[in-house]
Amino acid sequence: MSEFFYYQTVPIEFGVGKLQNLPDIIRERGYHKGLLITTKSIVANGIAERVVAESGGLITDFTYGIQPNPTVQNTDNCIEVLRSGKYDFAVALGGGSVLDCAKVATALAPTTATTQRFFDGEFVLTEPGLPLIAVPTTAGTASEITRVSVLSDPVSGRKRPFNSPFLYPVYALIDPLLTMSCNKKVTASSGIDVLAHSLEALYSKLHQPFTDLFAKHAASLVFRYLQTAYDEPDNVEARTKMAEASVAAGMAFNITQTAAAHACSYPLTEMLDIPHGEACAFTLPNFWVLNAQDEVEGARLQEISRELGFRDAAHLAERVEELKQHLELRMSLQEIGVETEEQLQQIVEASFAPNIHNNPVTLTKESLYAFYKSI
Amino acid sequence: MSEFFYYQTVPIEFGVGKLQNLPDIIRERGYHKGLLITTKSIVANGIAERVVAESGGLITDFTYGIQPNPTVQNTDNCIEVLRSGKYDFAVALGGGSVLDCAKVATALAPTTATTQRFFDGEFVLTEPGLPLIAVPTTAGTASEITRVSVLSDPVSGRKRPFNSPFLYPVYALIDPLLTMSCNKKVTASSGIDVLAHSLEALYSKLHQPFTDLFAKHAASLVFRYLQTAYDEPDNVEARTKMAEASVAAGMAFNITQTAAAHACSYPLTEMLDIPHGEACAFTLPNFWVLNAQDEVEGARLQEISRELGFRDAAHLAERVEELKQHLELRMSLQEIGVETEEQLQQIVEASFAPNIHNNPVTLTKESLYAFYKSI
Repeated sequence: MSEFFYYQTVPIEFGVGKLQNLPDIIRERGYHKGLLITTKSIVANGIAERVVAESGGLITDFTYGIQPNPTVQNTDNCIEVLRSGKYDFAVALGGGSVLDCAKVATALAPTTATTQRFFDGEFVLTEPGLPLIAVPTTAGTASEITRVSVLSDPVSGRKRPFNSPFLYPVYALIDPLLTMSCNKKVTASSGIDVLAHSLEALYSKLHQPFTDLFAKHAASLVFRYLQTAYDEPDNVEARTKMAEASVAAGMAFNITQTAAAHACSYPLTEMLDIPHGEACAFTLPNFWVLNAQDEVEGARLQEISRELGFRDAAHLAERVEELKQHLELRMSLQEIGVETEEQLQQIVEASFAPNIHNNPVTLTKESLYAFYKSI
Repeated sequence: MSEFFYYQTVPIEFGVGKLQNLPDIIRERGYHKGLLITTKSIVANGIAERVVAESGGLITDFTYGIQPNPTVQNTDNCIEVLRSGKYDFAVALGGGSVLDCAKVATALAPTTATTQRFFDGEFVLTEPGLPLIAVPTTAGTASEITRVSVLSDPVSGRKRPFNSPFLYPVYALIDPLLTMSCNKKVTASSGIDVLAHSLEALYSKLHQPFTDLFAKHAASLVFRYLQTAYDEPDNVEARTKMAEASVAAGMAFNITQTAAAHACSYPLTEMLDIPHGEACAFTLPNFWVLNAQDEVEGARLQEISRELGFRDAAHLAERVEELKQHLELRMSLQEIGVETEEQLQQIVEASFAPNIHNNPVTLTKESLYAFYKSI
């Protein structure tokens, strides 16, 4: 008999041109002095300065320099700026890396903790940090509405997700126009990440009726609009639908968490430098087919495949493969740079992040190795 | 181009037997002394006493006596008990009437206002009241997750909805087993209310992608399970699916508000004593057909009718009529007791509550009169 727990705290304002509402949103919440946390390209294209100028003095400065797969050091840098400037709120304007980093930085800013202590589990969040308004510039992570941040520690070579109710932004402002400047590579990788969030939410052991609704909606939008957003970067409708797909997928995987495809993506990104979405997509169609053979969840996944317009799970997976090919994403072990058995063994060893246990089909090192060999 | 604002703050815990988690929920939130606000039948069947006994001293008393379509006086009585007992939280255990009344009572308890001043708009809520845990015993209003309460003032003969972010319960605990004791009449009226919430959310001018998802899901569950829940009151699956339908519809109409069928229901309940759900259902199929002829929204409503498994909007409306017949709900003006033209004129005059303006087809007194004549 179905049972579930659903909770999503972040107000979502969505629409073309909505960025202009930012000053009103800040004023309504009674904040006074804000820092804009953003990225080099947003500074270069003039949007960062415009956001500061149009804030009517409410955002006084901006900081940037966060790298893809943000690090402990990136986060510490942000924290230092936040602490020394005595800000009472921040706005994160960027892709998933900027948002993830800003979420941890604003959470830690009012404390005395370092990011390293947080990363190592020596410091646990117990209360809200500085309020953060999240404004995504990619359609991918849905970090603007989730309680998750993924950070990397280059010293130990680890990349891991952190999960806390104190990582929720206070507001998600989603303006699809901001995604128009994404280049083809970013559009492909972040777009396919949305599909990974959707399909993983559907097969995650933690799936439930409401997350199923959102995940199916998101997947169907990706199948319908990602290729167009990639082929026609200026197509406002396709960009808008992909932004909707991204946040809808977030409404699902924020609750269900991700599963095997995401767990397997971490070593692909760390060891082989494959962008996050592309790394998730690498195993995605194969995990869909594998999980559709599961005794408990298989029939449901076959049924969902049909609801999404495919003959069965294998047919859905074929469409994912075609999509990946069209998006010029790498599809074989050779293409991603896996050359030796030893390398593959290392990847398999490093794939057992906690979210792999959300996968309906239980994976062992042996079975995952065989799975990879079949790709 | 689509734009929307989505926000839903209430954590939802859902499942058969979940009532037993209530003491843990109270403890986790750190509350100390609670009042159980409930209804006569819940006291009579022993559940009220059991809930108090099993709370480990956290719920010290219960109060009851709230009537269907709760009044200003009912609410004042609750407030008095809350104020004099120095409670720091309350649990509402009952149908929509109990929940609606408890939401306003806990909101007003820490203030010095009377319910009449609130009802007359002289006192406006500006901050959270006492925290309320809402536990529904019917599958109908979804009051446990909405920011709406409907109160009646027998003195002025008015019934009206109140809408405030300070009317949200802090937690919704939904145990479908609690709905098993609903008699056929309550099952029919509350179940058809869920369909009214769903269809009204779908055609409301305030509909948006995420509310559409929830409303379609809710409607499809009602079409599939309401008749069974009515015919077989002990069918746990049907009861569970109707409870899910109720909360899903709430996730939609909490944002979209209701529209013409609800606006028209108020005078039917006030003047003719028709139960709320039955009153909403009275005009529901006809409004579906009318709105499906709307220039802007019509095509979308036809498409939704097909997605829900019908040939078109008229076919969906026919199914609603059949369902109403099966549930022994009244279907003609004569059956609900409208005998004179003058009476009908009065009903039409009293139907222009604010939510009628959410209806895609604009209604005038003349067109609504003609609409009623066509039923």
